[in-house]
Amino acid sequence: MTDSGKVYHRSCTGPALQTVQQHAQEQDITLFAGCFCPFVQRVWAALEYLHIPYKDYEVDPYQKPQELLNVSPKGLVPALMLNAFDPPRALNESTVILDFLEDIAAKSTHRSLFPPSTDPYARALVRLQSDHISRTLVPAFYRYLQAQDPEAQISGGKEFHAVVQSLVELFERAEREVGGTGLWVEGGDLGWADVMVAPWIFRATNVLKHYRGFEMPRGAKFEAWLERLFEHPAFKKTCSDEELYLDSYERYAFNRPNTSQVANAINSGRGLP
Amino acid sequence: MTDSGKVYHRSCTGPALQTVQQHAQEQDITLFAGCFCPFVQRVWAALEYLHIPYKDYEVDPYQKPQELLNVSPKGLVPALMLNAFDPPRALNESTVILDFLEDIAAKSTHRSLFPPSTDPYARALVRLQSDHISRTLVPAFYRYLQAQDPEAQISGGKEFHAVVQSLVELFERAEREVGGTGLWVEGGDLGWADVMVAPWIFRATNVLKHYRGFEMPRGAKFEAWLERLFEHPAFKKTCSDEELYLDSYERYAFNRPNTSQVANAINSGRGLP
Repeated sequence: MTDSGKVYHRSCTGPALQTVQQHAQEQDITLFAGCFCPFVQRVWAALEYLHIPYKDYEVDPYQKPQELLNVSPKGLVPALMLNAFDPPRALNESTVILDFLEDIAAKSTHRSLFPPSTDPYARALVRLQSDHISRTLVPAFYRYLQAQDPEAQISGGKEFHAVVQSLVELFERAEREVGGTGLWVEGGDLGWADVMVAPWIFRATNVLKHYRGFEMPRGAKFEAWLERLFEHPAFKKTCSDEELYLDSYERYAFNRPNTSQVANAINSGRGLP
Repeated sequence: MTDSGKVYHRSCTGPALQTVQQHAQEQDITLFAGCFCPFVQRVWAALEYLHIPYKDYEVDPYQKPQELLNVSPKGLVPALMLNAFDPPRALNESTVILDFLEDIAAKSTHRSLFPPSTDPYARALVRLQSDHISRTLVPAFYRYLQAQDPEAQISGGKEFHAVVQSLVELFERAEREVGGTGLWVEGGDLGWADVMVAPWIFRATNVLKHYRGFEMPRGAKFEAWLERLFEHPAFKKTCSDEELYLDSYERYAFNRPNTSQVANAINSGRGLP
């Protein structure tokens, strides 16, 4: 496979495009978004799930408008502008925004991605899943996708497979100890760890499959989780058509220079920005 | 300076030893601790601040007892054993444990390290500080301390100074936008970010100063924060005498092989374990 020079997309397609069109009106919250960015997709799916009103504002992450730099010091999406304040305030970092949305929803829509506060241990198990996703699974995704040397690709694939497996073990532990969290168990609803990981699990089934021949772990239980995750309305309505992801991630798959701050961090062995 | 081969300590000294002795009785929570570990100190200071009863159980992190491996898959401290469950349950990862302790305290002692839930934006600013500490400040500390080459030591010192400065800017932003968080403002009380960062800021004033000649940022406001932080009872009672830290960190300062999983991660350019 050779680098065909495909360029990243600048606007959503498919179900995601419809969602964007439904969120064009001014609201207290403006989401600064990028159509192929998985960190954005986390926040976007949470906004949908928590029923929090927002305006979607797509920006080109490689041609950062000044407005983006005003709300996000590193110029990274996702970022929120909070228009109810005068002057407006801003928040960045996907995990910080997720916690903020939970706090907002607790007071307004009374929805939550977490187990109830009456069960601190169940909540801690979700935080443990989430910690594994942020610190281990997400960096392993990029190391694998950016690996050029065949041996590094093989070990990257094994590593990514193993970290997905470790997440499954954390889900199984939660099932055993507290009856399950999120969508892992049949009848469960979308949970915090589901939202945290879904964008990369989804890209594993298209981007990693296409560029690296990656095969997801097998098993009826795992496949049922995948289906519940990808078919959940709050997630599905944030998904574009496959072509958008394949085109937009070619630059990562061939590790083109200056692909992104995330790609640079992986290449230099530093933590993600 | 040459590596004198000092060995790490296995038990607390000074104020921390007194605190250990006061927490020898069985409780619903057992803290698996290590006397020089900053990740432990976070959790320990939070337990003290939140007034949550616990038993302190010091373990040797280099001679891991089977009990530790039972509660912490990587054999890392801090870990909690939750004895109220039958069979007992376990939690690991300092940040996961901190969130768990907050949830516990919300129901029992009604204390919290966070701004009130009525101010989600103020809480988000604290999460932003905390994110910077975990992902940027803590790794920069170890890169600096483990750097052997003089040039790497100089750049490591500049980097660590800059990331402390960035934390100060986040504190200043919170002061400007929500009147301040934690101990940064005079009259404030210990906060989440204070607890998250205190162990490394403290080690910067002894370990980094001794082995790298590091000088903290200056300024009346910064120095007043340092004093409030180091003198806060919940933190102070978790501190041993200086010699314990200088001895225990010599292995990091000379980057001895197999110093720790944290040291290995920094040497290999991976995220912290």
